[in-house]
Order: sequence, then C-alpha cells, then structure tokens
Amino acid sequence: MGMVTEAEYRRISPADFFYRNRDIAGFSNPTRAVYSAIREFVENSLDACEAIQTPPEIYIRVTAKRPGPGTIPYSLLVYDNGCGVPSSKIPHCFGQVLFGSKYLLQQTRGTFGLGGTMAILYGQITTNTPAKILSSTGGKWVYEYKLFIHIERNEPIVLDGYPKRFGNKDGWHGTVVEICLTGDYPRAEPKVLEYLKRTAVTNPYATITLADPKGRLYRFRRVTTRVPKPPSPTKPHPHGVDVETLNRLIGLATREGCNDLLRFMTKYLHRVGKGTASRFLKVVGLPPDTDLRTLSPSDVVRLAEAMNRFDRFLPPKADCLSPLGAQLLRIGIEKELHPEFIATFNRRPSTYSGHPFIVEGAIAYGGNFPPGITLYRYANKIPLVYDEASDVSWKVVRELINWGRYRVRQDAPVAVITHICSTKIPY
Amino acid sequence: MGMVTEAEYRRISPADFFYRNRDIAGFSNPTRAVYSAIREFVENSLDACEAIQTPPEIYIRVTAKRPGPGTIPYSLLVYDNGCGVPSSKIPHCFGQVLFGSKYLLQQTRGTFGLGGTMAILYGQITTNTPAKILSSTGGKWVYEYKLFIHIERNEPIVLDGYPKRFGNKDGWHGTVVEICLTGDYPRAEPKVLEYLKRTAVTNPYATITLADPKGRLYRFRRVTTRVPKPPSPTKPHPHGVDVETLNRLIGLATREGCNDLLRFMTKYLHRVGKGTASRFLKVVGLPPDTDLRTLSPSDVVRLAEAMNRFDRFLPPKADCLSPLGAQLLRIGIEKELHPEFIATFNRRPSTYSGHPFIVEGAIAYGGNFPPGITLYRYANKIPLVYDEASDVSWKVVRELINWGRYRVRQDAPVAVITHICSTKIPY
Repeated sequence: MGMVTEAEYRRISPADFFYRNRDIAGFSNPTRAVYSAIREFVENSLDACEAIQTPPEIYIRVTAKRPGPGTIPYSLLVYDNGCGVPSSKIPHCFGQVLFGSKYLLQQTRGTFGLGGTMAILYGQITTNTPAKILSSTGGKWVYEYKLFIHIERNEPIVLDGYPKRFGNKDGWHGTVVEICLTGDYPRAEPKVLEYLKRTAVTNPYATITLADPKGRLYRFRRVTTRVPKPPSPTKPHPHGVDVETLNRLIGLATREGCNDLLRFMTKYLHRVGKGTASRFLKVVGLPPDTDLRTLSPSDVVRLAEAMNRFDRFLPPKADCLSPLGAQLLRIGIEKELHPEFIATFNRRPSTYSGHPFIVEGAIAYGGNFPPGITLYRYANKIPLVYDEASDVSWKVVRELINWGRYRVRQDAPVAVITHICSTKIPY
Repeated sequence: MGMVTEAEYRRISPADFFYRNRDIAGFSNPTRAVYSAIREFVENSLDACEAIQTPPEIYIRVTAKRPGPGTIPYSLLVYDNGCGVPSSKIPHCFGQVLFGSKYLLQQTRGTFGLGGTMAILYGQITTNTPAKILSSTGGKWVYEYKLFIHIERNEPIVLDGYPKRFGNKDGWHGTVVEICLTGDYPRAEPKVLEYLKRTAVTNPYATITLADPKGRLYRFRRVTTRVPKPPSPTKPHPHGVDVETLNRLIGLATREGCNDLLRFMTKYLHRVGKGTASRFLKVVGLPPDTDLRTLSPSDVVRLAEAMNRFDRFLPPKADCLSPLGAQLLRIGIEKELHPEFIATFNRRPSTYSGHPFIVEGAIAYGGNFPPGITLYRYANKIPLVYDEASDVSWKVVRELINWGRYRVRQDAPVAVITHICSTKIPY
C-alpha cells in the first residue's frame, strides 16, 4: 500500500507549552494576568526573605504606560530585601521556564514553581519589552540584567551590555524585578488588595507597600520582626515513594557508591532506622545486603508497594515545615481584621502519603469583615482565593458545623482562618 | 556582609513537571487515571484514522494483572487502523512529553496535545513496565518498540533488541499501544462507558470495541463509512496574532528570504490580500516596502495591536475546520440515543480572536436518556465531561431558556447536543 503519512511532528519547549496554555498558570485574561503577575513576584519575595530570616520589606509599584480605560500597558516593579539571586543564576531563574529553587522536596509558596518566569513571559508577549532584574546576595556587587525569554528554545536572551554591575558598599541584598505587561489594573485592583490583605494576615512580620497607578499608597505594616524559621528540604518518606522516586533514589545512591539495600534505606529515605529497615526487608523477602544494581524492575515495584503499606515506619517529622504558630497567627489576625475575640488552634503534625503536614487555624468574631461567616484559607502561608467551594474547610464551615448550637447567628461577623503547611499541597 | 545564599537551583524537564503535576493532565487518582489513559489513546486513534479518511476500527482491551478489589495493575491495549507512526518517530511520539503532531495551528482532539505520553508516563511510574508500541504506516514493515520515558531527561529509552520488525504483506496500517498501569477500573467503568457512548454519537463512522477485565464486550458499531474530511493546518489570522506569534512569523519569513513587509503580510498571514495589506499599512504609518529586519520591538507591538483592531481584514476561512455536518450528527444521535424526534442546526462559521469556529447542535426528544434535560457537550468531536456548569451552553439550557414556553415539562426526556470545532478551544 505504501501509504505516506503527512503528519508533521514537532517538539515544543516548556516555555512554548506555557505560552500556548498560559491559563493553566493564571494568565487567562488581562485582569487575571495583572493579579497573577503581582502574586508570583510577591510570593518569590516572601520566600527569598524567609530564607535568610529577614523581615520582608516588599514594595510593589504599578505604573500606567499610557492613559486609558481597558487593557493598557503597565510597568510592574517589585522590590524585596530577600536573599537575592547569584548573578550567574539570574538569566535562568528569570528567563527559563522550569528552572529555579522550588523543585526540592520542601514546603514552598506557589503552585507549580513557575515563579515569576510566567509573568515575565506574559509581559514579553504582550509588550515585547525585556524584563529588568537587579539583584545582590549581599556581596561586593549589585548586578543588573535585561533579558527576554527565547520562548521556542526556553532560553534566556540577555541583552547586549548586560549584566551591568554596581558597587554595593552597604551590603544590600535583595531583588528588584521590573516588567511591562498589558492588563486591566482597575479591574484587578480589588483582587490585588484582598490578596495583599490576606497575605498580611499570615505574614505579620512583613511590610508590604503597593503604589498604584494613581499614586495611592497602600501599606501593610509589620507588627513584629519575628520571622518563622524557614522550611528545609527533606528526604522522601517510604509511605510516599512511587516507582519513579525509588528509581531516582537508587540511581543517586549507586552513583554515590551506596549499593547495599539496607544502607540505602537508612540513608536515602526519611525516618528509616536500621532495625525498621531489617524488619521491612524480612517482610518483603529481600536480603539486607542485596546489591541495588541487581534489583529488577518488578523488584522495585514490589519494594515501592511494600513501602507504601508497611505500617511500622516512624511517621515523617514535621521539623522541615514552617508553620506560623499560634502567636504569629493571632498577631496577624489582630492587625488586619481587628476582631473583638480570637481563638487559635494548632494541630499536631500529621502525615498523608508520606508527606508531613500541619494544620493551624483560628476563629475570630466582631472584626472588620462582612456579616456572616467569612472563610480565610491558606496553604504554605499564601492565601487561596479560587475554588473555595471545593475545599474541605468550606464544607465543614458551611455544611457540617451547626452554628446555631453555638448560638452563632447566620449574620454574625465571624471569620474562620485555616492554614495547612506541607511538603505537598494537593491543589 | 558577604551573605551566601543557600538556595539550590535546579532545572526540571517537562516530563518531570508533568510527573509532579500529573493532575493537570487528568491523572489525579487511580480511577481518573484509567479513564484518562483510555481517553488519550482513543482520541489519538480517532485523529489517526481521520487523517487518512479511514473509518476507525478501535479496539480497547483492559486486563487485570492480578485479582483484587481496589487499585491493582491493569494492562491496557488500544488498537487502531489509523495512519500509523513512522518508525523513526515512534520513540519521541510515545517517549517524550511535548513532542507530537498536535502542535500546529489546526483543529485537533485533546486538551494539551500531551496525547498518550502522559498515560505511558503514568503507567511507568506505577508499574515500572515499558510501553509496547506496534505500528505501521502501511509500508513494507510493521515495527515494534518497547520503551520507557527517562523522566528526568524527557527522553525515550528504547529497550535493547528493539525495534523489531515484521513483514507487512497485507499493507496493514495503524497503531497498537499497550501499557501497564495501576488503577481502579470498576470505579472508572461508568465514566469510560459514558465517554465511549458520547464519542460514538459524534463519530458514527467509527466502530469502537471495549473488552473489559471480566471479558465483557461493549461494541459501538459504525452506521456509516462516511468520514468527514480531516482538518488542515492554517496560517494565523491578523486578528489573533500577538507579539510572540508575529515575531516568530517575521523570523520565519526572513529565514525564507522574504524581507518585505507588504509581501510578508500577504504570504504569512491568513486572508490578507495586497489591497488590504496596503490599506492597513497606510493606517499604521509604515511604508509597504519596510524591511522586516529593521522593525524595532515597539514597531512589532504596534503592528500586532493594529492587526488585532483593524476591521477590514476578511474573516478567517473555516475550510481548515472539520465539522460533523447535520447528516452525521443526526445519524450519530439516532444510533446511540434512539430518540423519537431530532432537530439539528449548523451555524455559519464565525470567528473569535482570529480563530475560526463552527457551532453545530441538535435537540432530541424521547430517547434512552434520563428524564429532564441532558446536555451533551462536544469540542472538536470529543465529549466534554467535566466542569459542565461553567459552560455557556449549560447556562443557556438551564437558566436562559424558558422551557415551559415551549411546553416542555421539567421531567421531559430531552437531550441537547452542542458541538464547537475550532483551531482554538478555550477549555
């Protein structure tokens, strides 16, 4: 028959994928884009400050590039006093999708770890203007880059003459990002302000200032300088591994010269001691001195499944997590919501599929929130604004709790605040 | 200060991104995974058959690899008689994310063009088993591959000894994919059957057979051999270009030796004649013989914005689209829903942001569907099952139409079928 297929095959880069599907990352329209861009940069900034235990000083400036209602070009600048990005990493951190510091097993802000790169990409495709990044890690120099993203190749294009460097006598550290993007700021503003207010609740140690296009200043002032200890990376817990993770760990171990199954388990998995590992391997029926390099694909499947099921591993430790704690939570609520009454609670760490998590929360009464029960949901210290109704806390608050039993009227000014922090948030 | 940042930077591959965020692609849990895997392969098969105007013969077999309720390993095999994949393309088509034939400006089935690769990836991370692909484009040989995806590198790993090849005396063409994945088939089955039934409505020229793990056969038989002409790739319409698209087209044109702005517009954009281009360039204030290589970034922005606004371009042609047509739609509805009455409608092609689209639909009464109004939604010939309530057709059917005015009772057995086909579906 000798039929010739005329299909044209093509490889697209991850940047191209997100260019084509930018709605996945929250850039679905000009209003949402402004909101998402601010949000991505602010969350990067908060993480960067927390990493070095510095009370965040974040400054956001939105400037219209030409007058007009509707969708127009804006300049968006976000300043922080965080850890900064080493000069050599700046092009990739800001000019390449799927590159960054958020791909470890660790509690981080943000959904996909795409960070500011999506905002830069969106700015570029709407205004054809390079992003400007100024950063220092506190060393001798401050570096300035101007760059585009080569979307088809997913590579940064640093403009001629960059990086520039400036002396850093005062040892400043932090990052300033500036992009141009088209958007509809007036329509985005209510969401932006609500987002910043909610962020201020769970980050009472941060001062966040927004200068809007009309020159109005909104300032969310810190009321404490106590910054919670940052989250730290952790090893995978056996209850959470799948075949891919196990294969990667085995590959890593053998590259590092560890070929012994028992030693592998104690060294590359979280909370597995020698005794537990021995007992586990007896159940699985593999000798403790099995050479990792001799494991067959089906052995690995068997190991992964058995690890998920074995109930004598110690639960994951939560010390890699960074909860707020009752005191900071209370301070944050007082400062932004001014209630007459607050009660907070902090659940003990628990675990789901090998991921540790901590739930903390509060209930407040009589503050400056609307009548009726308002739910403030947080994950890893960032507010969740969308899909409220599919959250279990919404179901509990709206459907399961009989508020009448507590003599809380339907229209009582009540706020319920929930915060979950974990190495994995199932968004 | 000389502060050292301890952030660890990392690049992850697109395959790794989707491994970490597999819920985006519909692989969020063992039930959904089975459904999504079947769906991805079936949609690839339908596209592959349509490409060569062959009435699809699709066979799906699901076999349990061990007994048990709950989540267990299954083998999933999908056979089609489509165009096949050339041997040299098989490893990348099936073993690399973001590679395929669905990244042109063209009407295609599926959401992200990830195709079967996500199903293969999911199978691999749950069962550590290679995917098996058998394919021929109708030439001398049938090729067989076994492969894994190297997720960290986003590369196929073809197993030793593959590809094998077999003589193809009969000129067979098509593809057979077989993977192992863990899932919960019994819980997925209702969704799978509903999906196949709905697919049969808009693909009445396809015979689709499902052999379930209990050996039961479900057959959706074709009732016609008339296959609609396949969609074809098209050029971008000026109303739909953004800066990135325009930059790419300009890059392509100059590489192909076209440096003249007027000629560029007529050759690389859809529906732009010489007269229209001249008038447009007069409005923009750029000479027709402007050398593309001298355009500044802000010129490109100005061009893109002006193109989006200029109202004298001809609307995009819809001949690149592949609607069903009233006759096939009627046949499909009759065959699967057996109503007493059908009325179909086909809207004239229209355009949104430079993308042509066609809406067609039908209303049926008294068939084997439940009492009350059932909505069957389709996009590019595939059924939409999720997020019904956010679809405009749902709002129209449930909220805007006063059915009482047409003497249709609340519990009347009515089905409303809507189909939109376009080069871009805003999911």
